[in-house]
Order: sequence, then C-alpha cells, then structure tokens
Amino acid sequence: MEHTPSDPDYAAAVVDLLGVLAYGELTAFIRMAADSDLAPSLRLKSDMAGLAATEFRQYSQLVERMRSMHIDPDRAMEPFVVPFTAYHERTRPRTWLEGLVKAFVGEGIAKDFYREMAAFVDAETREVMDLALEDVGEADFVVSVVRDAIKTDPTASGRLALWGRRLLGEALSQAQAVAVTRDALAMFLIGGGADLAAVGEMFTRLTERHTERMARLGLSA
Amino acid sequence: MEHTPSDPDYAAAVVDLLGVLAYGELTAFIRMAADSDLAPSLRLKSDMAGLAATEFRQYSQLVERMRSMHIDPDRAMEPFVVPFTAYHERTRPRTWLEGLVKAFVGEGIAKDFYREMAAFVDAETREVMDLALEDVGEADFVVSVVRDAIKTDPTASGRLALWGRRLLGEALSQAQAVAVTRDALAMFLIGGGADLAAVGEMFTRLTERHTERMARLGLSA
Repeated sequence: MEHTPSDPDYAAAVVDLLGVLAYGELTAFIRMAADSDLAPSLRLKSDMAGLAATEFRQYSQLVERMRSMHIDPDRAMEPFVVPFTAYHERTRPRTWLEGLVKAFVGEGIAKDFYREMAAFVDAETREVMDLALEDVGEADFVVSVVRDAIKTDPTASGRLALWGRRLLGEALSQAQAVAVTRDALAMFLIGGGADLAAVGEMFTRLTERHTERMARLGLSA
Repeated sequence: MEHTPSDPDYAAAVVDLLGVLAYGELTAFIRMAADSDLAPSLRLKSDMAGLAATEFRQYSQLVERMRSMHIDPDRAMEPFVVPFTAYHERTRPRTWLEGLVKAFVGEGIAKDFYREMAAFVDAETREVMDLALEDVGEADFVVSVVRDAIKTDPTASGRLALWGRRLLGEALSQAQAVAVTRDALAMFLIGGGADLAAVGEMFTRLTERHTERMARLGLSA
C-alpha cells in the first residue's frame, strides 16, 4: 500500500513522526547539555556540549520545515512529552561515563528507528527527516573516551554493558507505549509497507545495530 | 597607557579576558539548557533552549578564534571554573521564572561587563569579543513572559526583584574574586586606560544598566 500525503491517516502519521523526532531532539539537547556538566575536563565538557548543540540545530531545522508544511510543532510534539520524560527519568546518568554512553547509545537507537521510519514516507517528508538525522560524526569522541575508561577501570565494562541494556530496554518500552496510544503512527507502521513480520524484522535490525554500537565502545550488548 | 599585543602582561590579560568570556558562555549554555526543562509549555521550553544554543554558537566561534590566535582555550578557561561554578551554585533557580530572569539579567550583567572590557583591547581582540557578544534579540521573549507573570501573580514581583538583586550581588562578588586572583586581568583594568576612579564609574554604569534591564521586566532593582 502506498502512502499519499493527501490521505488524512497518513498526514496524521507524518505529523506524529515529525513531532516525535523533534521532541526527541529537543529533550536530547537538554539532557546532553545538563550531562556535559559531569565531564571531568573542559575539553570533554566542550565536546559533549557540542553534541547537544548539534541536536538543537537539527531540532530547529525540523521545526522550521514543519511550519512550512503547516504543521504546528508544539501540537505535534505534545503527545510525546510523557514518554520522553519517562525515558529520561528512568535513564538519568549517575556518572559522567553513563551520560556519555547514553548520549551515544540512546541517541543511536532513536536515530536508527527514525531511519527505519523514513523508508515509509513520501520524498518531501523523507528529506525533512534526513536533515534532522544527519550524522556529522561529532559523537565519535565518545568511542575513545569509553574505551580508555574501560582499560583503566575493568569493572566499568560490566557496569556500562548493563547500562547499555537498560537504555535499549527503556527505549523500546517507551516506543511501545507510544505505539499503543498513537493509532495513526501504529497503523502507518503496520498497515503501510510493513506487515507484522516486517515490524519484527525491524526490531531485530535495531537490536543488531545496538549490538554493533556497543561493540564499538568495547562493550558487550 | 596604550596596550600593544606584544607586551606579555597585555597578552596574558587578553588570554584571561577571552577565557572568562568563553567559559561564561559555555556555563551559561549548560545552565540555560538545563533550566529550559522547567518551562511550563513547549513553546517556552523551545525559546529558552534557543537562547542556550545561541550561547553555544558564540562560545564555538570564540574558541575557534582563540585557536587561530594560538591560545589554548582549555587552559585559558581553567582559572574561571571555580568562580563560575560558585556563581551558578549560589544562583540555582528554584522556579521557571527565576531561571528566566537569571538568563536575562545574569547574562545581561556579564555581557555589559565584557563590553566595558572590550573598550580597552586592540582591534583584533575587540572584533573577536564583539562576535561573542552580539545581541540577536533572542532574549526578548523573556520581557513579555515576566511581565505577564507579574500581572497574574502580584507577589511574584517582590520575589523576582529580590532575586535580581541577588544575581547582581553574586555576579559582582565573583567578579571581585576573579580580580583578586588574576593579576594580569586586574592590572590591565587598573593600569591601562582606566584608573581607580574610572573603575568606580564603570561599576556605576553596570549597576545603572542592571536597573534599566530590571525595569524592562517590570521589576524594581
């Protein structure tokens, strides 16, 4: 089944999709900026703050494009305040390293999910989503910092592996909460392009990429 | 006495000046981003986050220019970690309105001070400072939000007036702590261009501008 922008269910799903993406970036910005305060050096504080600032730039571009598509960004984001607040409360980092892994792994999972979604939308919407999902490699510093930390403190490896699993679990749990309450989004996912088996395959891919990302950090998933 | 970039005392003062400016913007970014989470609506959260993002953009430009001037930004910022941490700990907003007034009033005082300092530096340094001090009017939304809040809750007016006084006091107290420990910066201020009477006049001007800024918010200073 092909989606057309004139179908009202499809239009509602697009609003949801851009809304969840935008609010995800706004809250990622806030959390990363706050977590940068845990950094043990000015260089790392600055790097983490830069990561946060990138989220805000992408959020801004997204909001601007939503307005030009006659979508009210605040109304589009509103339904996602509760699940994102819950996710961030349940994954509040207690240490700088946890914050760092969350910035890398949590955002990685979210962006993989949005990239999967981008495959189902029309060209204009996909272009808007791509703009907000562009990876400029700014998170690469996380890899060497986490690898170094594991080398000097071997117990960190086990703790951070557990933390990564928790991040994946909380992200999937909130994604499910969203799917249950947002009919248009759920129907869009199930009804168009993807059947239930395809959704299952998508979750398998998300988990595989999560495992690869954890391996890049030197952590088991 | 005229400053020349080749004078080592002057060079040290410029490093301090750019360092304090950069670190002030980095911490303002972090605090404003964190405080945006207190906003009562998505629109205001987004506006406050935008204010934070502007601080980071100016910080980034400043750091880039410092590097091109062969100044190590991290070393230049290091001496100011303690006073800024103290300032932000002593002025941690308990409410959204306090955060908003702090973003407007606290940053206003800091930027007035740096603008005063910019009068004493060479043209190249002044240009770098101006870049980081540009006012793009993004904080203007604060005025109507605070004025509306005072209208609907008259007791807020007295509380926020006190809060503004505290922000000025803490800012001046930390500025003094910096002057005591950073000889080059202090000597630059006293020795070059400005004598003690001129410094007194400068503080009078800073206080006057603070009073004007508070009045714009509908608050007594």
